[in-house]
Formats: sequence, C-alpha cells, structure tokens
Amino acid sequence: MDFSFLAKRYYRELTENVIPFWLRHSMDEAHGGYFSCLLSDGEVYDTDKFVWLQARQVWTFSMLYNQLECNPNWLDFALHGARFLEAHGRDEKGDWYFSLTRDGRPLLQPYNIFSDCFAAMAFGQLARATGSEKQREIAAVTFQRITERRGNPKGIYEKAVPGTRPLKSFALPMILCNLVLEIEDALPGELVEETIEECIREISGDFYDPGKGLLFEHVAPDGKFVNSFEGRLLNPGHAIEATWFIMDLAARKDDESLMEWAVQTMLNMLTYGWDEKYGGIYYFMDARGYPPQQLEWDQKLWWVHLEALVALLKGYAFTGEPECAIWFEKLHDYTWQHFPDPNHGEWFGYLNRQGEVLLHLKGGKWKGCFHVPRALFQCARALEQLIH
Amino acid sequence: MDFSFLAKRYYRELTENVIPFWLRHSMDEAHGGYFSCLLSDGEVYDTDKFVWLQARQVWTFSMLYNQLECNPNWLDFALHGARFLEAHGRDEKGDWYFSLTRDGRPLLQPYNIFSDCFAAMAFGQLARATGSEKQREIAAVTFQRITERRGNPKGIYEKAVPGTRPLKSFALPMILCNLVLEIEDALPGELVEETIEECIREISGDFYDPGKGLLFEHVAPDGKFVNSFEGRLLNPGHAIEATWFIMDLAARKDDESLMEWAVQTMLNMLTYGWDEKYGGIYYFMDARGYPPQQLEWDQKLWWVHLEALVALLKGYAFTGEPECAIWFEKLHDYTWQHFPDPNHGEWFGYLNRQGEVLLHLKGGKWKGCFHVPRALFQCARALEQLIH
Repeated sequence: MDFSFLAKRYYRELTENVIPFWLRHSMDEAHGGYFSCLLSDGEVYDTDKFVWLQARQVWTFSMLYNQLECNPNWLDFALHGARFLEAHGRDEKGDWYFSLTRDGRPLLQPYNIFSDCFAAMAFGQLARATGSEKQREIAAVTFQRITERRGNPKGIYEKAVPGTRPLKSFALPMILCNLVLEIEDALPGELVEETIEECIREISGDFYDPGKGLLFEHVAPDGKFVNSFEGRLLNPGHAIEATWFIMDLAARKDDESLMEWAVQTMLNMLTYGWDEKYGGIYYFMDARGYPPQQLEWDQKLWWVHLEALVALLKGYAFTGEPECAIWFEKLHDYTWQHFPDPNHGEWFGYLNRQGEVLLHLKGGKWKGCFHVPRALFQCARALEQLIH
Repeated sequence: MDFSFLAKRYYRELTENVIPFWLRHSMDEAHGGYFSCLLSDGEVYDTDKFVWLQARQVWTFSMLYNQLECNPNWLDFALHGARFLEAHGRDEKGDWYFSLTRDGRPLLQPYNIFSDCFAAMAFGQLARATGSEKQREIAAVTFQRITERRGNPKGIYEKAVPGTRPLKSFALPMILCNLVLEIEDALPGELVEETIEECIREISGDFYDPGKGLLFEHVAPDGKFVNSFEGRLLNPGHAIEATWFIMDLAARKDDESLMEWAVQTMLNMLTYGWDEKYGGIYYFMDARGYPPQQLEWDQKLWWVHLEALVALLKGYAFTGEPECAIWFEKLHDYTWQHFPDPNHGEWFGYLNRQGEVLLHLKGGKWKGCFHVPRALFQCARALEQLIH
C-alpha cells in the first residue's frame, strides 16, 4: 500500500469535500447553532436542533482546530454552536435536552445521557482551544451529572420493570472511556484512570464472549449472556468503533495483551458482520442467527464503515497484523466506491443492502458533522504513522 | 373478476394455511399464552410474550369462533391466551404491560395504551363467545382506563416537553372507533355513538389534508399541519386501514358522503404510497418528499398490503367505484406473489423494497396472529357480498 498517497487522499477529502460542506450549509445565522437536516446538495429540509448533533459539530470543529490547523474560521464556527448550546441546551437540573426547535425552545426531554456525553466532549475540546475556564466548567459539571445518572441513565423514562431482566448496555462504558480522555484537563487524574480501568474491564470482560470472540450490546449485570432480543443483539460497527478506543488506551497504558485482544476482536466482528453477497458491513445482527428486531438490520451505514477503517489502520499501525492490511484494502474500496458524493461534498449516510443510496441526505436526525471528519482525520493520522 | 373463486381462495388460505399454523406452533403448553416469535417453519426463537400480540391472538380466535365457525378448538385456544393475560397482563392500576417473560413476569411497563386497546378488544370479543360477565367486565374496565389516559396516553413516559410543539396522533381515534364497536355490548349506547362521531370528526377533519387528499399521522391539536418529521409523516398502510373502519361506520350510519370520502381517500393514499418501480406499498413517506427518519421506509410489510386489499374490496362492495376493482387486481397479484408461504403456512411479514423476504420469520415482536387472518376473513366476506 502507498501510505503516503492514501494519507493525502484522506486529508484532501476532509479539507476539500467535507469541512467546506458543513461551513457552507449548516450555519443558522438567524437563530444560532447548526442545521443538521441537509439534503444531498446541502438544502435545509428540517430546522429542529438535535442537541447531541449540535454538540458533535462543536466538538469536530474544535478538534480540527486543536489538532489539524489553527484556523480561526473553524474556531468561530465551533463557538457559534457552543453559544447556542449554552443558551438553550440544558434544563433546570443541568441535564441536556434531546432536541430543540430552531430558535432553541426545548422539544424532547433529557431522556438519556448521550446528549450530555457529547456536550461534555464538545465543551472539553473547545476549552482546549480557547482556554476558557467557563467552558471547562461546563464540561466538568456535565460529567458530574453523567456520573450521578450512570446507574439509571434513562431516569424516569426507563420503561423496563425493575428486577425482572436487568441488562447493562455496551454504549455506556464505550462512550465513557472516550469521554474521560476528551475532558481529562477538567477532571482529577485518578478519576480518569479509575474510569478507564473500569471501562476496559467491563468491555473486555463483561461484554465480551470468549467462546464466540464477539462483543455484545447488552449483558446481565454480571456479564452473562441473556437470551432475548436485546441480549442476542450484535452491532458490528459499534463494537468495532469501541475496539479503536481500546487500542488507543492500550497504547497509552503500553498494554500489549490488551492491544492484541482489541485487534483480534475487531477482526472477529468484521468477519462476522461482513456481507459476503453484496459487500459492506451489516448494521445489526442476532448472535444466534435469528431475525433481529431492527428492520434496518441489513443496511450499510456510513459510520460503521468509517469507524472500521479507523480501527483497521490503527490496528495495523500499532501491531503490524497483516490481516488488518488485507481487510483495510477491501473495506477502503467498498467504502470509497459507495459513500462519498463528489458532486456536492460530504458523504451519503444510508445505503440499502445492495449498496444503493437509500436516503438522499447528508444529515438528519441521526447523522451530522462527526463520523466522516473524525474518521478521515484519524485514518490520515494512522496512515502518516505508517509512512515512518 | 370471479368473486366466487376469489372468496374460496381467501377462505381456504385462512382455514388451511393460516389458522393451522398458529394452532400448531404458537401454543405454550407449559406456561400458558402464546409464542409469537416463530421462524418460517414455526420454530420458536424467542419466548417473550408481548401483551398486545397475546391479546390480538385471543381476539382473532374469538372472532373466528363468533363469525366463521363455532369450532370449540378455536374457543379453547382463545381461552388459553385469555387466562394467561388475566393472570399476568396487568399492573396494580389495571394498566396492561407491554411485555412479559415466558412465565408471565412483567418486563416492560404500560408505556402506551395500545396493549390496553387490544386487551379490551380481546376480552370484548371473547365475552361474546362465552357470555362471561367477568370477561365483559375486563373489557369495560380496560376501556374506562383508556378513556382516562387518553389525554396523555404515554403518561410518565412522555418525552415531549409540554407546550412546545403539541401534536396529536392519528393512531388513537383510529383504534378507538374500531374498539367501541368491538366492545359495544359492554358500553352504554350513547358513549359508543359519541366516541364514533368524535373519531370520525377527528379523522376526516383534523388528520385529513383536503389540498393533498391525504391522511397525516400527526397534526396540531387544532388539525393544522406541523412542519417537522412527525408532522410530515405519512403511513399509507395505516391510513388505508383506517379508511375501511370508516367505510364500515359510514355503512352503519348510512352516510353516503362519508363513504365516498373514505373510498376516495383510500385511493389517494394508495396512489401516493405505490412503488412504481418495484410494486408494492411503501411503509413510511414524507408528505413533502423529504427523507423520512424511518430507515425502513421503503420496505413492503404484510399488514399494509392486506389492509389495503380489505379496503379496496369493501370500497368496491359498498360503492361499485371501478378504480377499486382495478387497484384490487393489481394489489392482489403483488400480494399473493410475495407474501404467502405455501411450504409452512402463514405469510412472510417483511420484504425489502425489491420484494425479497427480508426477515425469515412468521412472527416476532411486531407480527403475530392478527392481520393475516383478519384480512383474509374480511376480504372473503366482502367478496361474498360482491357475488350476490
């Protein structure tokens, strides 16, 4: 592989095809914040503001400013979203709403803590760029609330009857181990280390099935398999994304066996999730091969493929495992043939199983400015590492 | 069209291919109630009991006993499910849980009132078969709770912030106008008439857009269009199912203009929802042609096609509108070519846009014993009416 050529390609896609799309189309000059519901050509088709997507966009432009280029337009753009979030994003308890109207009135209550996780990430990353104590404080206070709510993240909106079938969710440790690094500056050092150790233990212990070599989305509190729709659920993209978080942590801890576990688990999930007939990675699967309850199970989603590219390149850069390179070439080809839109910029998000564009949008309620730029940046960095 | 031949075909499918499938595969001898998660060949792949599906199955076998044939096996089968529901289905307030474990322990709280609606229908229909005062009482008490909860059907699980964007949902008047007829014997006559009038007013007034001739899923409390994902949402199958409820009510009231409205609206929804490329009716659409938030929007679902067949035949039998016959032939061909499974009985539920089977199941969390037998029965009856 020509790592140098590839690194340039990933950087160029990021800076010429993706960043300009969001700068050009998503700014709401009148009411602040960003539009995320954008058609293929960037036309706004809905003006609701989804807090987690607002926060992800603030994070993205702050991260690019901090790590790629000190471009003042990017910082201004991040601050534009942060002001909107600060003014309208929280309820009286300090929890972050799920969604707001265009002018910032609350639409959906803080019924989970994912808005909060991304808000904390956004203000943490932004504070690194600005040095603002106030922004750091928002990140720290939000993290405090996440910790308080962690035992019952859905709060009063939890529909499960307590006690009958307790389950814990992979999403929480996965996001926490990434989050504490993002807002490290705003947290006590030992809290960061404790959280990381606890998350690694849960992910590689409780959510991992050593017999199958796979990561599950939900398990019993003690890590046991639960034979139900939720308990059988696999989300290959989600698990693969987590493995590169773990690889970064393994590198940080200089823990070789954790690194090997993460790379091997990533390859297992990829092999299990690959569609042999049409190519691409399935969205949802049942660990026993039964029909999943998610009707969209066989669709090919942008973030799944991008996060897998990151994981493969990091795995290759960290360990030199040849399977990573073989899989990367195959997945790179599929991804670049199907998702980018050279006409209008940004990438399509949703393909059907056959690989045709299913929704002609660049953003919506669940896709914003996050996975494409983050993954292109992470891939480019890993490729640079491989050059040397 | 050879109505007599078709009527026989629909009856035969019901009695030889569908009823036997459920009798054979869905009975839980050990714990009571029914399995609804069944693979193509009837194998049970999950044992959770979804209250609304349990209730729908009790209703179906009671209805068949009452209206098709006084077969004591069918009544026993209905009673088998009713005993399970009576023993395990309700919380201390008398609200019906969403789901239970195989042995009846509650899993998901009564977070909406659809379990309750189908429980009321089930016990109302069963009471007609048995004459049981106790069953009639369960239907009446459940209806009372539905009425009390109607203003806030999700109760404490409602995630919308009050006041920002109030919306009302088409599902509620649609199900209520059907429900009051089902449990007529257990309700005061004037309550039945009032509810019917109110539902007709809401459906044909508030949820109907006269400019487009379409029925919307959510509108403002005063019936105005709300430009949001929920406000733009169309569900052709859902609206078409409602039109045949309205046709039955129009016949009952001898209201010709309401009948014409229902038939025309059904044809409008069908034309709007038809997939010109691959055939079949889309699941979800956006009234302005924007990407819907439902990723499964282009799939072809069994109940959508079956309810549309019922609506077309009723429309034709009631009014003789030739468009109904033309559409019926086209839809009948598509439906019978794609959904039935002559090998193992019952019908497949979920096809992709191209018409291929997407999930190899006969039942799951959202498909049970209800739409296929009800629609086959209703079609056969309408066809008989057309013979004479």
